[in-house]
Amino acid sequence: MTTTISAQSLLTRELLARRRPGYSLEAPFYLSDTILQADLEHIFGKHWIFVAVEPQVPEAGDYITVDFGKHSILIVRDDDMQVKAFHNVCRHRGSRLCASQKGSVGNIVCPYHQWTYDLTGKLIHAKHMGDDFDPTGLGLKPVHIRSLAGLLFICLADNPPEDFEQMAAEMTPYLMPHRLMDCKVATQVDIVEDCNWKLTMENNRECYHCVGNHPELTVSLYEYGFGYQPDAQNAAGLKRFEDILASNHARWESMGLPSAEIDTLDDRVTGFRTQRLPLDRAGQSQTLNAEVASKKLLANFVDPALGGLSFWTQPNSWHHFMSDHIVSFTVLPISATKTLVRTTWCVHKDAVEGVDYTLDNLTAVWNATNAQDRRLVEESQIGIATGAYEPGPYSPFTEGLVEKFCNWYVNRLSALTKTA
Amino acid sequence: MTTTISAQSLLTRELLARRRPGYSLEAPFYLSDTILQADLEHIFGKHWIFVAVEPQVPEAGDYITVDFGKHSILIVRDDDMQVKAFHNVCRHRGSRLCASQKGSVGNIVCPYHQWTYDLTGKLIHAKHMGDDFDPTGLGLKPVHIRSLAGLLFICLADNPPEDFEQMAAEMTPYLMPHRLMDCKVATQVDIVEDCNWKLTMENNRECYHCVGNHPELTVSLYEYGFGYQPDAQNAAGLKRFEDILASNHARWESMGLPSAEIDTLDDRVTGFRTQRLPLDRAGQSQTLNAEVASKKLLANFVDPALGGLSFWTQPNSWHHFMSDHIVSFTVLPISATKTLVRTTWCVHKDAVEGVDYTLDNLTAVWNATNAQDRRLVEESQIGIATGAYEPGPYSPFTEGLVEKFCNWYVNRLSALTKTA
Amino acid sequence: MTTTISAQSLLTRELLARRRPGYSLEAPFYLSDTILQADLEHIFGKHWIFVAVEPQVPEAGDYITVDFGKHSILIVRDDDMQVKAFHNVCRHRGSRLCASQKGSVGNIVCPYHQWTYDLTGKLIHAKHMGDDFDPTGLGLKPVHIRSLAGLLFICLADNPPEDFEQMAAEMTPYLMPHRLMDCKVATQVDIVEDCNWKLTMENNRECYHCVGNHPELTVSLYEYGFGYQPDAQNAAGLKRFEDILASNHARWESMGLPSAEIDTLDDRVTGFRTQRLPLDRAGQSQTLNAEVASKKLLANFVDPALGGLSFWTQPNSWHHFMSDHIVSFTVLPISATKTLVRTTWCVHKDAVEGVDYTLDNLTAVWNATNAQDRRLVEESQIGIATGAYEPGPYSPFTEGLVEKFCNWYVNRLSALTKTA
Repeated sequence: MTTTISAQSLLTRELLARRRPGYSLEAPFYLSDTILQADLEHIFGKHWIFVAVEPQVPEAGDYITVDFGKHSILIVRDDDMQVKAFHNVCRHRGSRLCASQKGSVGNIVCPYHQWTYDLTGKLIHAKHMGDDFDPTGLGLKPVHIRSLAGLLFICLADNPPEDFEQMAAEMTPYLMPHRLMDCKVATQVDIVEDCNWKLTMENNRECYHCVGNHPELTVSLYEYGFGYQPDAQNAAGLKRFEDILASNHARWESMGLPSAEIDTLDDRVTGFRTQRLPLDRAGQSQTLNAEVASKKLLANFVDPALGGLSFWTQPNSWHHFMSDHIVSFTVLPISATKTLVRTTWCVHKDAVEGVDYTLDNLTAVWNATNAQDRRLVEESQIGIATGAYEPGPYSPFTEGLVEKFCNWYVNRLSALTKTA
Repeated sequence: MTTTISAQSLLTRELLARRRPGYSLEAPFYLSDTILQADLEHIFGKHWIFVAVEPQVPEAGDYITVDFGKHSILIVRDDDMQVKAFHNVCRHRGSRLCASQKGSVGNIVCPYHQWTYDLTGKLIHAKHMGDDFDPTGLGLKPVHIRSLAGLLFICLADNPPEDFEQMAAEMTPYLMPHRLMDCKVATQVDIVEDCNWKLTMENNRECYHCVGNHPELTVSLYEYGFGYQPDAQNAAGLKRFEDILASNHARWESMGLPSAEIDTLDDRVTGFRTQRLPLDRAGQSQTLNAEVASKKLLANFVDPALGGLSFWTQPNSWHHFMSDHIVSFTVLPISATKTLVRTTWCVHKDAVEGVDYTLDNLTAVWNATNAQDRRLVEESQIGIATGAYEPGPYSPFTEGLVEKFCNWYVNRLSALTKTA
Repeated sequence: MTTTISAQSLLTRELLARRRPGYSLEAPFYLSDTILQADLEHIFGKHWIFVAVEPQVPEAGDYITVDFGKHSILIVRDDDMQVKAFHNVCRHRGSRLCASQKGSVGNIVCPYHQWTYDLTGKLIHAKHMGDDFDPTGLGLKPVHIRSLAGLLFICLADNPPEDFEQMAAEMTPYLMPHRLMDCKVATQVDIVEDCNWKLTMENNRECYHCVGNHPELTVSLYEYGFGYQPDAQNAAGLKRFEDILASNHARWESMGLPSAEIDTLDDRVTGFRTQRLPLDRAGQSQTLNAEVASKKLLANFVDPALGGLSFWTQPNSWHHFMSDHIVSFTVLPISATKTLVRTTWCVHKDAVEGVDYTLDNLTAVWNATNAQDRRLVEESQIGIATGAYEPGPYSPFTEGLVEKFCNWYVNRLSALTKTA
């Protein structure tokens, strides 16, 4: 066992060390169970992972469960309205506590022998254990959880990365005006992609593939906003986009909506990027006609044309905050070749379905785009799994953020496996 | 290969050595393929395994096949009415001989090239093999099989544990009065549980979970018969149960029905436990009203209120012998995380379906209970598979037999892997 | 990793070295992932593999994809009407290029970012890659491909076995008269067998199992043509078959149709065997009445009674060329225990379905036979996977070609793993 494990670590370290900048990663990063285990242990086990939004647990006793890798995490709002996270496992004989993806409880009762925990995780009842039984030390195992303006991040490590605070300080002014905590979940859709989670993330970090694959998304999206090789034919278009960007940023900043780009994708432990980008046509929202999907705007917004505030985090999420709705994506590995993509659409809590919005219209763009991306990343997985794949060159104009994702990943995994 | 295998043995032995008494087993015992292979080799490969009842092969030529781990075993009644067991594999090019779970044959003919064996396993015909072909040594490979009052146990080892005789001597007086050999199989139901076989067994060895999960079973079952923490409130109830037990035991013993507990669960190689327990309400049978399910009583019984004679064996079975029917359970590993539970209901061979009994009524309690248990053990498997599980404490009052199952398992596996 | 891999090679070499001639192979050859990897690397990776027929890509731009092991191979007819083969993987980020099993294209365009290759594999377009981007060295990776009278063989090795030329020289006179290149594909059927690919091949190399399993095939097939133990009762029948064979061979040779057996199955790298065999009853074709399935005969044939020219190749194909149609079989490993069998029926390109032939009649014999063989090889796989299997003796009369398959396999794998 010892021999095998250290040989595997050796393989991982060799692959990390010989990574060629500017090129896609070698095949084992997308195929190997060993590397998936390293990803789960070091990337998903020691960083802040976006898993949910506060509107998923609006009331005391509301809970959700989030599963990834071998973990099942229970997130619950306690009686003091604090959001807590625990490992979803009974301390008696290990049964999963909550099998449902969401629900509402008074206490947390194990279905097997009815061991009972309160919403702070304390074991408050266990029958037949004898008069000397000491429940101390048998409470639910806690998991670190933080809310960033309503976005819930967890960290499984004992000592989470401290620069979450820095991200929170920088991002709160961008996110808070949209008042996610005053939203409700309109709907949530899970899809399972037959690919490694990193292919899902890399696909998210470029729009090189958008023009050929995403007719619905590109209704409202300015392709120029995601990188373009300049040439004589597109010089006027690029210039026009820069002008639109500058004038909108000035307008939004004057409204108290920070809009300028922040990019720490590959130079911090808790890497992220944000930018408020104008939308094309009606300019209001990521819908099939670029108009708002919900007539009840978020917060106290009056102007629907606020563009899309995008927020991308390493290693596993992206979000688009618009005037009328917020769409959040979390990417969770199931195995080396299976990945959950969970998409959550939030609208104002007072918006009425059928009156202010319809689910079909609200979800049309991203349900279509997700289905298209799914096919792309699955075809990538299939091709990479063949013996013939070798890393190819990234476009210097359109794949810079893919490169930054790989930089962050390789750097973090290298740092954390160095002493393993 | 050598390195890997001995490293794996080392892991198994380390885990066995550091087992903490009074606590559930560590996670690898329920998850690891290495340990499942050790279980198959040492536990299921070197002990007496309950697999079937004689009424499954009533006539000469009747056969059944029993599959577990990588084995397929053919059990057949030969022309001298002896029950024989063989590996279900042709000696020519290895085809499985009998693909069906049961049937009736004159000889055993391989479907591939028609090599033909008689019911004692002798190769009696093989075409095209030449005049010098010697069929000696090419008979079917035999497997040890014994009938204990109609319960069929096999052992794959060359030298089976000798204390089967001791169990047979002690148990025959308990079981024989119910005349299983004069029964027929009313029905048999297989379910596949997504859990390790040991979780299925541990679940069987306690009724701590019954009150919260088994409304049908607890109609006829006295919860006090399976362990209880005494306190002021239940003192009267416990006392009443002890009185019922004593008076019934006296009555049954006077009828020639041994009833006292024998418990060798963790101090013999062929460990078992038995006890005749009173049933609640009508007191006759494990049904939804505690009355007999079959009007045609077993053997020459006249009194239907014989309680339930339970017989639990290590590593893989339990049985309830009542006045009107017998229900037998065999647990067979499919993989580290998949387990077959086969339940067989027997009634008197002269009982007529629709007249003396209905299948719905006969099977209602255990089909419901099996479905409930399945959910419980699958939730345990899921919880234990998370990284957060750690062994928890057993109840000293209600989980003593679970502890004995673990004792037996750990002791036997330790003894058999010591020299491996 | 190093330790593990060389231990595995060691196991493979030990198993190869201790193979007992005249007996079936040991179980790991049919079960082990390590050996399947060796089979893919050395047997399927370094020999000429039959994968398709030219009529599958009749026009310029027509393509098919062929997947086996971890490979996906793209076979395309280019604008000069040459058949080319490439790895079906984009040189940018590794997406599979063509997801369909067949189609027609002008250029080969990657669905992800529209990198575009011409039909010779050259990269001719890649957007956003910058002015200095050099597409040299980023063409599709080529695979060796050869047509033998319309049968397409590929080789993944850099230096394919040179004795393909010898096979081509010897076989072209046998095959060319049937003019496969002037045929069309009437239909193609894939089945996936739950067994190792070698069981599929071994089953193909004997007809010992035919009489007991293939009622449709044995309508037209003379059992004596596939080996028989001579005895007093069948002496007259064997003599009669030899006479029919001799007189038909003389007749066919006089028509310019080579018919004599060539057998190099186990003494060449590119092993094969051929023989033109008479058919029983109407003597024309492998159909349910032994008459032609297609009224439009192949090439310029006038006489429908040309028997069946069979062509068997190591490691993975067999073919029957008759006067009216050609049926080809390719066997491709999917995993250690899953194998694709692809059967292709070709008729004259001018034959009209519903007029000259019906698909039901054309495919009846081999669809039935394939289904029967599938059951046989799957039962073999199940039996061999049990712990009780051990190699059994081959019939010296009917299993000689199975033995030659094993000889070839063991010799080739031994030679290629010696220095590994």
